[in-house]
Amino acid sequence: MTVAVIGASMTKFGQRDAWIRELIAQAGEAALEDAGITPDDVEHLYVSNMASGEFEGQGGIMNALAHDLGLMPAYSERVDQTSSSGGAGIYEAWQSIASGASDMTLLVGGEKMTHRSTAEATDIIASITHPAEYKHGLTLPSFAGMTARHYLERFDAPRESLAKVAVKNHKNGVDNPHAQFQKEIDVETALESPIVADPLRLYDFCPITDGSSGLVFTTEERAQEITDDYAVISGIAGATDTHVVHERDDPTVMGGVVDSSDQAYEMAGIGPEDVDVAELHDMFTILEFLQMEGCGFAEHGEAWKQMDEGRTERDGELPINTSGGLKSKGHPLGASGVAQGYEIYKQLVGEAGPRQVEADTGLACNVGGFGNCVITTIMEAGQ
Amino acid sequence: MTVAVIGASMTKFGQRDAWIRELIAQAGEAALEDAGITPDDVEHLYVSNMASGEFEGQGGIMNALAHDLGLMPAYSERVDQTSSSGGAGIYEAWQSIASGASDMTLLVGGEKMTHRSTAEATDIIASITHPAEYKHGLTLPSFAGMTARHYLERFDAPRESLAKVAVKNHKNGVDNPHAQFQKEIDVETALESPIVADPLRLYDFCPITDGSSGLVFTTEERAQEITDDYAVISGIAGATDTHVVHERDDPTVMGGVVDSSDQAYEMAGIGPEDVDVAELHDMFTILEFLQMEGCGFAEHGEAWKQMDEGRTERDGELPINTSGGLKSKGHPLGASGVAQGYEIYKQLVGEAGPRQVEADTGLACNVGGFGNCVITTIMEAGQ
Repeated sequence: MTVAVIGASMTKFGQRDAWIRELIAQAGEAALEDAGITPDDVEHLYVSNMASGEFEGQGGIMNALAHDLGLMPAYSERVDQTSSSGGAGIYEAWQSIASGASDMTLLVGGEKMTHRSTAEATDIIASITHPAEYKHGLTLPSFAGMTARHYLERFDAPRESLAKVAVKNHKNGVDNPHAQFQKEIDVETALESPIVADPLRLYDFCPITDGSSGLVFTTEERAQEITDDYAVISGIAGATDTHVVHERDDPTVMGGVVDSSDQAYEMAGIGPEDVDVAELHDMFTILEFLQMEGCGFAEHGEAWKQMDEGRTERDGELPINTSGGLKSKGHPLGASGVAQGYEIYKQLVGEAGPRQVEADTGLACNVGGFGNCVITTIMEAGQ
Repeated sequence: MTVAVIGASMTKFGQRDAWIRELIAQAGEAALEDAGITPDDVEHLYVSNMASGEFEGQGGIMNALAHDLGLMPAYSERVDQTSSSGGAGIYEAWQSIASGASDMTLLVGGEKMTHRSTAEATDIIASITHPAEYKHGLTLPSFAGMTARHYLERFDAPRESLAKVAVKNHKNGVDNPHAQFQKEIDVETALESPIVADPLRLYDFCPITDGSSGLVFTTEERAQEITDDYAVISGIAGATDTHVVHERDDPTVMGGVVDSSDQAYEMAGIGPEDVDVAELHDMFTILEFLQMEGCGFAEHGEAWKQMDEGRTERDGELPINTSGGLKSKGHPLGASGVAQGYEIYKQLVGEAGPRQVEADTGLACNVGGFGNCVITTIMEAGQ
């Protein structure tokens, strides 16, 4: 059975004066409206969220959302796969339709983070890494710093190439009204920003963000009855890598990206060369390179050259992170994978406004932890 | 596609000197062994867990488990549906096989709770209820007390009938080596125990528990190649009720139980009269009555009569909670629904030891919150 996406929504990402329940209710309601369906149509509800209990002391948000949107007796569930919870939600929504369990599924991803200090948020996020590594000071930013140093030296890549990722994604974010930062930066600003985890600096990191995003799924058959503007999920897969990051053979290869994208391409019957637009998980600038290589858009160690050549700019051959990416759009953990789906869907149905590129096939890669679990989703425009 | 269960495991439930990661690793390893498969066979891993972050400050336990059992690159995900997370995990595992996403799925439910004080645990658990109710002092035990008072008065049921639920389930638990309490009690002990939420007393409540349980799922076709001892999931569904409990029309009707069991019966093509053994979510004694009625085993307001007649004893017409139920087995939130599946599976394949009853069809009802979301699963012995 072919699974279709028929609607999408996003709240403004940024520092929001609203709790998690309000954020997901806003995105959920807007997704139903965008899909042109009513609460009674929804049979399954998934809420992608990593840590509402840790951030806000609030549990049971999926049941609260079912109530707030009037979805009862729809089935409800919270999906957690750390920072790839949104991608995992897309996979669950796909499975709910493909298995026949549901005929209409609403997915809402969300996280409320900015009311906690950066130290507190870092502590909550670091709890998803291996305790043995975390106790030695290895947080996600420090893994990113070490990986970036290794990559730059081994592949003789200029430090500027990482800055250019940030510059490109900030430029794209200017045209995204939902982005946390609608602000251009230049290479000098990025290179002169404070060091966070040498050689990475402030502008190599995504911000801490509040926000929510929603998607509506149904069968392709029913999608065709409802709308002309739908996309289908032609490939989707998830894969784990070692939870202990230092046990990986090559720190510049994200095994979860390779395995999940391989499986997704096989399911879709296409290859990397067929992808017209991609959203990659640029939590750190270096990750955009590793995912370009893991997804087969570039040879190992050569993604930075494409950056230099402008291939991944909005007017390039393969636009990457037209939404602004996590870098400028922001990264509300559970929402990010859903918001990647939002961008790909809007690009495929021609509703991306000033960010619109020409695309029939899009790919989203959502990374949990430091690649501990990864989901790759391929969408194609409906016929 | 018909989905089969081919293996099951449980750790000892109780006060355990082990963290959540160790508990789920123990149950996961034992489930693979019981199914006779290797880590390489597993394609999807689901971990049912409500609150490892809140209880223990530990996130990412599904990725840790994939690593600890050597399941990479299997897909991993944490499923939260509050106290019905285990049932939701069964539903996700079912969907993963039925949709073709996975050919072999491992589900492990677990929770580590006893290192926190009762007040702390109550606070974490109460965060899943509606804030407006919780702020007025309405915790799950207080809902249970009010519901019990209403039920006893309205249906002219004797207070002893609730005590008899506890006595029956404790008696069953004596023969369950995994149970937290392997100890018989009598009606007088239950009736004279300290008041917790009038009219309910200590022995009307399940304990706080550490523990883990696992199940292995595959297609019926593959199950038949692997083993003669398998069960099939012939019906499964989940349903929400209002998140604000006081908005329900009738406090003695659990809408989520009615809706999910109706759908599960329809899917299985059977009715309540065809069920030979059932595990109900007796977090509070009164809930066993409400679920007996919601699942159609008794008329509304009459479940207590069956209790008096001994129909639900192990040697009765419809044995309920042969495992000892949550009351004596314990209730490690995310594990409980999986452990219900363990008991039904073991009964159907004739491996329940001294608890064995004659059964070809079993039902498990797993309740989240105060019925805010409910999963009903029907299993039948494999042919």
